[in-house]
Amino acid sequence: MYEGIVQELIDEFGRLPGIGPKSAQRIAFHILTTQSFDTTRLAELLAEVRERVRFCSICGNVAEQDTCSICRDPRRSQTVICVVEEAKDVAAIERTREFRGLYHVLGGALSPMDGVGPDNLRFTQLVQRLADATVTEVIIATNPNVTGEATATYLTRLLDQPGLRVTRLASGLPVGGDLEYADEVTLGRAFEGRRTVEA
Amino acid sequence: MYEGIVQELIDEFGRLPGIGPKSAQRIAFHILTTQSFDTTRLAELLAEVRERVRFCSICGNVAEQDTCSICRDPRRSQTVICVVEEAKDVAAIERTREFRGLYHVLGGALSPMDGVGPDNLRFTQLVQRLADATVTEVIIATNPNVTGEATATYLTRLLDQPGLRVTRLASGLPVGGDLEYADEVTLGRAFEGRRTVEA
Repeated sequence: MYEGIVQELIDEFGRLPGIGPKSAQRIAFHILTTQSFDTTRLAELLAEVRERVRFCSICGNVAEQDTCSICRDPRRSQTVICVVEEAKDVAAIERTREFRGLYHVLGGALSPMDGVGPDNLRFTQLVQRLADATVTEVIIATNPNVTGEATATYLTRLLDQPGLRVTRLASGLPVGGDLEYADEVTLGRAFEGRRTVEA
Repeated sequence: MYEGIVQELIDEFGRLPGIGPKSAQRIAFHILTTQSFDTTRLAELLAEVRERVRFCSICGNVAEQDTCSICRDPRRSQTVICVVEEAKDVAAIERTREFRGLYHVLGGALSPMDGVGPDNLRFTQLVQRLADATVTEVIIATNPNVTGEATATYLTRLLDQPGLRVTRLASGLPVGGDLEYADEVTLGRAFEGRRTVEA
């Protein structure tokens, strides 16, 4: 529809997740017409990012060195590991400031339909990290969906060893949510996990 | 939240229109982990686009040469000019395949609140294009909102000259829309612009 490079730019942006043709066009025109937007900076970052970013050799989180800043931090508890599917889940949990232990990024969830079996995820590395018995608790924080639950079940069996506590994040009503709009599975989980309140 | 370059990339994407922090994070991780996505190509396009793209010296549309492909096309009617706010409006009208004349891109709409007055838009260039009386009709296709309507009113007065027909795109119910959900202004316009139907 457009001439040469403008259309190419629109097409490239359209390949990114969550960006449709209209958004891609809007972004391309923004870049063309907004002088304050630093195209050179974005171009440099894109050219460098894959080379500079590696994955932490211990936990699999994104890192710019051999290990990530969390694994290098001596103030973090070395006795608890929180297992997540993706590196972005680490960021989500870090934002809560509730957890001060270590992480283990699996690199996805078990999904035979998509050809993701146990060999495709970082299970072996997790088991190796537990070998010296420093870790006393593993918190499973995979997503509360079909593949995440399957992965959690697999992990529960894999990690069944004496002296290791394996926990799963609580399911229930989202804070600020409305009981009326909760789906029945979530509401069912909220009943299952109900807690005694003290007066 | 992330280390160095990953966070920088998220921040840069977050500066683009319509991309919030969550989408920016999703895009950055997609770029990091999807080997099939060609980061180098997007980087090259970003680095080149501003240098290679210029604006047509006749109509103001995006172009890679001094004039755009529409102004260069001898098969397009040279007697009708459609006036639009932005270059992306040209693309929207071209997709309809209804219009085979020329365009004139104003570069925005009159908006005193945002400091956009007649001197900031390409009105003088439009008047110059009408000087040799080749053009017999100007179609005003500014947006049907406050600033677009103000610009249309201004244009109507500016172009009031003998032998020149000035028209405005029809307002009315969107095709495929529901009468029930139309706002009252649109519905009022649809009544105003009603047409006789032949049996």
